[in-house]
Amino acid sequence: MNITIINGPNLNLLGKRERSIYGTMGFDEYMKILKKKYKTVKFTYFQSNIEGELINKIQECAKGVDGVILNAAGYTHTSVAIADAIAAIKTPVIEVHISNIFSREDHRHVSHLGKNCKGSISGFGLRSYELAIQYFLEK
Amino acid sequence: MNITIINGPNLNLLGKRERSIYGTMGFDEYMKILKKKYKTVKFTYFQSNIEGELINKIQECAKGVDGVILNAAGYTHTSVAIADAIAAIKTPVIEVHISNIFSREDHRHVSHLGKNCKGSISGFGLRSYELAIQYFLEK
Amino acid sequence: MNITIINGPNLNLLGKRERSIYGTMGFDEYMKILKKKYKTVKFTYFQSNIEGELINKIQECAKGVDGVILNAAGYTHTSVAIADAIAAIKTPVIEVHISNIFSREDHRHVSHLGKNCKGSISGFGLRSYELAIQYFLEK
Amino acid sequence: MNITIINGPNLNLLGKRERSIYGTMGFDEYMKILKKKYKTVKFTYFQSNIEGELINKIQECAKGVDGVILNAAGYTHTSVAIADAIAAIKTPVIEVHISNIFSREDHRHVSHLGKNCKGSISGFGLRSYELAIQYFLEK
Amino acid sequence: MNITIINGPNLNLLGKRERSIYGTMGFDEYMKILKKKYKTVKFTYFQSNIEGELINKIQECAKGVDGVILNAAGYTHTSVAIADAIAAIKTPVIEVHISNIFSREDHRHVSHLGKNCKGSISGFGLRSYELAIQYFLEK
Amino acid sequence: MNITIINGPNLNLLGKRERSIYGTMGFDEYMKILKKKYKTVKFTYFQSNIEGELINKIQECAKGVDGVILNAAGYTHTSVAIADAIAAIKTPVIEVHISNIFSREDHRHVSHLGKNCKGSISGFGLRSYELAIQYFLEK
Amino acid sequence: MNITIINGPNLNLLGKRERSIYGTMGFDEYMKILKKKYKTVKFTYFQSNIEGELINKIQECAKGVDGVILNAAGYTHTSVAIADAIAAIKTPVIEVHISNIFSREDHRHVSHLGKNCKGSISGFGLRSYELAIQYFLEK
Amino acid sequence: MNITIINGPNLNLLGKRERSIYGTMGFDEYMKILKKKYKTVKFTYFQSNIEGELINKIQECAKGVDGVILNAAGYTHTSVAIADAIAAIKTPVIEVHISNIFSREDHRHVSHLGKNCKGSISGFGLRSYELAIQYFLEK
Amino acid sequence: MNITIINGPNLNLLGKRERSIYGTMGFDEYMKILKKKYKTVKFTYFQSNIEGELINKIQECAKGVDGVILNAAGYTHTSVAIADAIAAIKTPVIEVHISNIFSREDHRHVSHLGKNCKGSISGFGLRSYELAIQYFLEK
Amino acid sequence: MNITIINGPNLNLLGKRERSIYGTMGFDEYMKILKKKYKTVKFTYFQSNIEGELINKIQECAKGVDGVILNAAGYTHTSVAIADAIAAIKTPVIEVHISNIFSREDHRHVSHLGKNCKGSISGFGLRSYELAIQYFLEK
Amino acid sequence: MNITIINGPNLNLLGKRERSIYGTMGFDEYMKILKKKYKTVKFTYFQSNIEGELINKIQECAKGVDGVILNAAGYTHTSVAIADAIAAIKTPVIEVHISNIFSREDHRHVSHLGKNCKGSISGFGLRSYELAIQYFLEK
Amino acid sequence: MNITIINGPNLNLLGKRERSIYGTMGFDEYMKILKKKYKTVKFTYFQSNIEGELINKIQECAKGVDGVILNAAGYTHTSVAIADAIAAIKTPVIEVHISNIFSREDHRHVSHLGKNCKGSISGFGLRSYELAIQYFLEK
Repeated sequence: MNITIINGPNLNLLGKRERSIYGTMGFDEYMKILKKKYKTVKFTYFQSNIEGELINKIQECAKGVDGVILNAAGYTHTSVAIADAIAAIKTPVIEVHISNIFSREDHRHVSHLGKNCKGSISGFGLRSYELAIQYFLEK
Repeated sequence: MNITIINGPNLNLLGKRERSIYGTMGFDEYMKILKKKYKTVKFTYFQSNIEGELINKIQECAKGVDGVILNAAGYTHTSVAIADAIAAIKTPVIEVHISNIFSREDHRHVSHLGKNCKGSISGFGLRSYELAIQYFLEK
Repeated sequence: MNITIINGPNLNLLGKRERSIYGTMGFDEYMKILKKKYKTVKFTYFQSNIEGELINKIQECAKGVDGVILNAAGYTHTSVAIADAIAAIKTPVIEVHISNIFSREDHRHVSHLGKNCKGSISGFGLRSYELAIQYFLEK
Repeated sequence: MNITIINGPNLNLLGKRERSIYGTMGFDEYMKILKKKYKTVKFTYFQSNIEGELINKIQECAKGVDGVILNAAGYTHTSVAIADAIAAIKTPVIEVHISNIFSREDHRHVSHLGKNCKGSISGFGLRSYELAIQYFLEK
Repeated sequence: MNITIINGPNLNLLGKRERSIYGTMGFDEYMKILKKKYKTVKFTYFQSNIEGELINKIQECAKGVDGVILNAAGYTHTSVAIADAIAAIKTPVIEVHISNIFSREDHRHVSHLGKNCKGSISGFGLRSYELAIQYFLEK
Repeated sequence: MNITIINGPNLNLLGKRERSIYGTMGFDEYMKILKKKYKTVKFTYFQSNIEGELINKIQECAKGVDGVILNAAGYTHTSVAIADAIAAIKTPVIEVHISNIFSREDHRHVSHLGKNCKGSISGFGLRSYELAIQYFLEK
Repeated sequence: MNITIINGPNLNLLGKRERSIYGTMGFDEYMKILKKKYKTVKFTYFQSNIEGELINKIQECAKGVDGVILNAAGYTHTSVAIADAIAAIKTPVIEVHISNIFSREDHRHVSHLGKNCKGSISGFGLRSYELAIQYFLEK
Repeated sequence: MNITIINGPNLNLLGKRERSIYGTMGFDEYMKILKKKYKTVKFTYFQSNIEGELINKIQECAKGVDGVILNAAGYTHTSVAIADAIAAIKTPVIEVHISNIFSREDHRHVSHLGKNCKGSISGFGLRSYELAIQYFLEK
Repeated sequence: MNITIINGPNLNLLGKRERSIYGTMGFDEYMKILKKKYKTVKFTYFQSNIEGELINKIQECAKGVDGVILNAAGYTHTSVAIADAIAAIKTPVIEVHISNIFSREDHRHVSHLGKNCKGSISGFGLRSYELAIQYFLEK
Repeated sequence: MNITIINGPNLNLLGKRERSIYGTMGFDEYMKILKKKYKTVKFTYFQSNIEGELINKIQECAKGVDGVILNAAGYTHTSVAIADAIAAIKTPVIEVHISNIFSREDHRHVSHLGKNCKGSISGFGLRSYELAIQYFLEK
Repeated sequence: MNITIINGPNLNLLGKRERSIYGTMGFDEYMKILKKKYKTVKFTYFQSNIEGELINKIQECAKGVDGVILNAAGYTHTSVAIADAIAAIKTPVIEVHISNIFSREDHRHVSHLGKNCKGSISGFGLRSYELAIQYFLEK
Repeated sequence: MNITIINGPNLNLLGKRERSIYGTMGFDEYMKILKKKYKTVKFTYFQSNIEGELINKIQECAKGVDGVILNAAGYTHTSVAIADAIAAIKTPVIEVHISNIFSREDHRHVSHLGKNCKGSISGFGLRSYELAIQYFLEK
């Protein structure tokens, strides 16, 4: 099973910034934990701060990937173009968020992506990613 | 581990109505599957169409319950009072929805409850409940 | 022919309160007139101030009832859950209002229920119920 | 008893256009059915695509007419001037709509006319007109 | 001096309808008073319930008319096309209203025409027309 | 003098939840204080989490009660039906709130009930109830 | 006949500022013209930049004044307190504006005062004041 | 090929009014140019200031016409009834505007008609009509 | 105990204007009643129509005053500056209103001041002031 | 004549995704058709999913290009920065859309770019591009 | 060089109130520092809590003043009249704020004054004033 | 002292485009002036049209930079992701704008970045940058 995890802007700073919200572990370290825990999954990981590069990556997932886990961060709330990219491929995409988007500022309540995704999971810290993986595994 | 599952209005009709959205399995049948799959969990199940009875039940979960899984259905989008009840107890509550609330009508995008919940999971069919259980189990 | 008339909150006070808007006849008295006038119809009458009991009753009408006449009063403008209940049954439901909802306060112009009903009739006093009955009779 | 039925823009195409919404019968044919069914009523029928002609007709109904049944179609949602005309006469006017205005596009939910009408009936197909007639007959 | 007075929908009913708001004198009678009072003015009077006819008349005033006094009634608040017609001619147009538009319903506070007019006068009963005439006379 | 105090959803938890906002005293304990302080008053106390039960209770107060003190909590901001119930009885109703509704979240600034109440008192902690009682006593 | 003219903030600069909008004549100079033209009127003139002083003056006009002509300038669009003062006296108040408020910025379209005034006149330059005087003279 | 060009209110003044926006050529003159340029097309031209006459004309185009080019001018932004007429016929309608509607006032950005038209072209001066013709010709 | 009562614009007219809303007693007369009734309280009374003078007075209450009772009248709904003044002092301020602000016009439902006050009391006529005094007395 | 065609996000997938809306031909294939059809035009074609690269390209068109045809896709509705880029160059830009933006989701009705473009053409499928070319050719 | 600093409501309390936001230094003390630091500047300082007095002062600056530094505090967000005063003089006015208005409550994000000022500076504490002075000095 | 100046989209065109708004000097030329004027400062200058590259640069400023001066141009009003980047670093960021954002179009009044910045300066032309430098220098 091939799963691609795509992280959007500022998530490369995970573990360094605003730790009270996002926790203290960096994503690279977390990828190691994921790989150890889910040995049957072949993971691809991608991060970019650039909206268009995220679109490129999502498009590439149209083939040879069983599931995409997308944390579009700040673009979640503004990008119609990423939403279009998700609609353009058949591979199922799950939207994840580390923090609970509904308990933060108002402009974070709106998700442009959600309606084109298979489902969305938010608020469980890094565990949000694992719940998405478990969904793909048991499907 | 004690988990209480609380279902709101019309979910007693599950498996009977609008099957293209909600699937064909009733919730009683599904509870049997859950109990078989998660043997270490002691489940309590409660359903009501009455807003105040859901509030009563949530309040009762303040003690002796490790986690609440709440699908408040139509009340999700209108009830300030249920949101207050969630805020009033310390037991963590996870909001679940069978369908993806972001891909349905506009008035279903707003969740009054979300901001007081630990997290929310929507769009995975009945599997939404299992992802919530898995979160509690691994905590 | 079986017709169930369901009245929502405060309609048990009909004939006693705000008579300039709602008239002076109580609903029990009116039911007698209806029964005399429409002898071929078997009426069931139900009134409750509790939202969930109205939902229960609507659900019960899924079988053995030819038409439902619903005056949800104050819940008309706030209840997504009642709207879901109407959508969940196949029995046709007609929304009625004694006063003309368009000539009253702004928040009474919105009907959450209307879009799931067969049709709606408002402003004819108690006659609104009779017009609904006549529709079912001639269908 | 004199009843005037006034139809607004595009209703002259009834039976020819968008049949899935409006049905297949033209209004002329329907007038014949009405006349046969309600023999004690003297009907006047008027249709125009021109807003001001509808106003002229409504004004003429101030005398010698017992009731007006008005389907203002597209003007329902935009015309302050027709609303003024209804307010200017004492003859009771009932607003009717063939389709359920609450289950169509958002801008069709608003009625400028409703607040000056006796009542409104929508969603029963051509039967909406008959319900209005029955109201006038039994008054 | 040539002055054209243009009245919009329902003003032909003046003196007959809603007398508590609009007074008891018809406009024809009032025209006689105006003619007697302002002997140096040559008046033209036009009334129509039809939006397009009002536009036609305004266009005709482009030549040979010194001033237009326009009471567009219900079209004041909805007509972009009449506003365009006013902008299209060079003859000054004064907007008048019999009642005070700011003390009536909210949707009557908006004037589409105002921004293309020389000025506006409202709330003085039929005297509003005279104030407009006096403005033209002293210019 | 008969005064009925009606408390809405979650107020049975008073003294147990969110103490920084609502204080540490339960309402039962507080009722004892009130009875000792106002010996000439005969108090009736009612609490329910169920919207319809609050409506029932308000209706019962139509007779034999001199004043109602209502803290509708979360329903304050959403219930048209409770507002209708208040309008339906002649007994004066005073709206009270423990915390200052204007200094909390935006959606708590709106009161559906206020316009049908005699007056409203908010922000004085449990003292809000006493001020209401003092009003009734001196009337 | 006693007429009081009250001018609000910045109108003391008339003739000095923004001449393309407001003209080149100062108000003192204009008062001389008015006095010469309307010899039977006894004028009182008052200008202040302070909202409360305008309120004081309006209150003083409750007695011994036949009409008030008020140009509240920038306070027109923000002051509930001036509107209350106008409602508090029986002397008729006419709202005037030198420029056409409908052809300027959006926030100048709203008048808080208008609904409590006898009528309003705007867009005729200083002539707006004269039209108001003429109204009082012929009354 | 039969093409009907329908122009709405005030377009009869083309070449005479507001030339900086609309240019200096009248539409009659322009029709001659069109006829000379597109010799294989049989043109019908219709202009009216009256909303309902535009609706009549659109309805007539249901038969024997290959394409309609509609410039509804001021009615573009307010008429639900014209939008209904377009929906009621099968002949393709192209919406054209001489000026760029997005670079003018806000209320001109909204098109009620657009969603029922084949496509829309705006901002190219009279050339907007030719681009529409070219579309029909090459189809 | 020192209590300062501050009244805003137009309250100097109390007992003279709009008596159906505000009653027939002037505030000076009422102050005498208050002083007789609450002998242990030393009252300071201040009224002004000028927003800035109210701010000055509120600032002066920072020292030597135990409680402020503020009826800001028309400024309640528009003044950010008065709200800032309340926040700038530590003396508790109670907002009072003679009439029920929720049962009047919409723009009177908003209170800029409320969120910085201890609490608010409205709708009890002049009794609103007494309830505020009683709160301070028993504190 | 030099024409640059600039396509925004996801248009590289043309012919592969959502064919019911966008058709089955890829843009490369379409460019060949364009070149064959318009032999006197020298085309430059550029596509990018990255917002800033589109801005770079638009800036480059300031010199040596006679016209720009821009389909900014998803960025049309959100990008203030692209709108600035268009305003910053003198080369005329025509906005094109393959589908009719007015008949799709609400958030696609808003164009930030339109007001800075020469004109806009939408709804004619790939033909929209050709209509734009024809405009440049005949200019 | 003559610079006038004008401070609005509650800034006389600077250094005494809400020190976490506004710092601990009073403005008088700060004026001394400014005079010492900028010896070539002749400063005039004015503070008032009264809106109209601020307007008076701004008008006086029309002559003999090289620059105005205005902190209108709470009036920034509500006063159309101060904005008019700024527009009425030719002396450049710079808007300053001690705290960052974008990081406080929403209603503080709106500035009525900004559009008539030369520029605005906010968020640098008392240093905001110095930056404004430096601008005038180097001009 | 190290100061990094970051310019967003289209600012590379400074001095070439829309000179009436932005002036005639290019930013490179201006950088030379800055370096000559502030000899103790080590400047880094960066410009990009690509949102993600601006984010990268802001992140790099987390170390070894004393202050960031950011003119995000068109992204100011739409980018949540840049706002997140500013929040993620401890280096103070000052938001600058060449023109006064409050005197341009409405959608330019909103700043997503402002609330995470130290302060903001707008409207002083290129001088806005110097005022920001002076703030850092004197800190």
